Amino acid sequence: MSDKKTRSLQRVVDMAVEAFRSDRLRDMSINVIAKEARCSTATIYEVFGSKWQLYRIAAKASIERGDHPRIEESNQQGSIETLFGFCEARIVHLASHERGRGEHLLNSRADISGGDMRDYVQRQLSYIREAVEGPVRRAIDEGLLLPFDVAAHVHAIISGTGFGPMVTGNYQLDPDCNWQTTLRLTFAPLLTAEGQVALEAFVARRWAEAVDAADEEKARLH
Amino acid sequence: MSDKKTRSLQRVVDMAVEAFRSDRLRDMSINVIAKEARCSTATIYEVFGSKWQLYRIAAKASIERGDHPRIEESNQQGSIETLFGFCEARIVHLASHERGRGEHLLNSRADISGGDMRDYVQRQLSYIREAVEGPVRRAIDEGLLLPFDVAAHVHAIISGTGFGPMVTGNYQLDPDCNWQTTLRLTFAPLLTAEGQVALEAFVARRWAEAVDAADEEKARLH
Repeated sequence: MSDKKTRSLQRVVDMAVEAFRSDRLRDMSINVIAKEARCSTATIYEVFGSKWQLYRIAAKASIERGDHPRIEESNQQGSIETLFGFCEARIVHLASHERGRGEHLLNSRADISGGDMRDYVQRQLSYIREAVEGPVRRAIDEGLLLPFDVAAHVHAIISGTGFGPMVTGNYQLDPDCNWQTTLRLTFAPLLTAEGQVALEAFVARRWAEAVDAADEEKARLH
Repeated sequence: MSDKKTRSLQRVVDMAVEAFRSDRLRDMSINVIAKEARCSTATIYEVFGSKWQLYRIAAKASIERGDHPRIEESNQQGSIETLFGFCEARIVHLASHERGRGEHLLNSRADISGGDMRDYVQRQLSYIREAVEGPVRRAIDEGLLLPFDVAAHVHAIISGTGFGPMVTGNYQLDPDCNWQTTLRLTFAPLLTAEGQVALEAFVARRWAEAVDAADEEKARLH
């Protein structure tokens, strides 16, 4: 396949994903998609078969491109800050997107086969487990996490910060609930006294950063 | 409305839920539903409007009747056993049903509005939180759970035993994973030394019960 054709097909998929996300894909014709992606309708039918197969591909790609938080380790911060930062990102992500995405999928009428979803969940979970396990081991060595079973730490952190209905449910049931509360609840059983200090320092630092960002934004607008 | 009519309509809903669960509802006609529920088609249209509105009601009722585990407190067992039993039931339930239900919903093409789902999640979560909080308080008093924040215990227990993708994901990623493992991982950070003994006693008792049940079944078949 020529580079040009490959790029055209990539545009078709990108467009379909965007249209799927905003729930416009159902009402779009292959003609419109072809026009917007600068691609012939014949090529679309040849490669994707039908509009509904393209719909299915878009649904799957939309889940896969769910821009889940990635862990970022740097030399500037210790392993526990890396862990807190990753968990903060996960909570914020799940609280704002996951439920919406789930509902969108429920309403999308897309036939997403069990196998696709299972494969996606598996890959996502493998990544998260590996991302959490390294910093957990180091934070135990540094005396910030309590020295019990690493697997129990990983289980508590992943489920405590990643249970969608719990995060969103709590957000709805309790208007005072926010990422700070969820982070404190999750880590309360896991941290040593020194680790608790590190958690409060992390929350305070992120708070100060948010205030600075708001000030900058205000200054920019004036 | 007469009692007889009310019962007829109840049969219509029950039938629709069953048909929805087994994915037969889509292909069923109102005639068939009326015949099986011993009810006139006119009544069905009068009350439910259309087949697709009945479909929507069946989808919602199917979620609501999801026979989620309820907590059972008895005088025969302590609060920690009540808690372990509830968590065991939750893990087994989520591992075997939740993903299936989710996929079924994804594939059902039912238009389940965000509001319905949110309301359902809220009510379900309120029940679970209340069910867990009582035994947690008592188990802390009895010296079986570590004496930190009750809310952190509740958070750890609910998310550790109820995060669907986690439970099912772990089950898939790790063939050795089962409800015992998930229960041990969840409670490891929460229990006192005495509580750990109680957990192992619970697991051993449930194991013995399962062996007894298998023996009885074998004896019944011979």
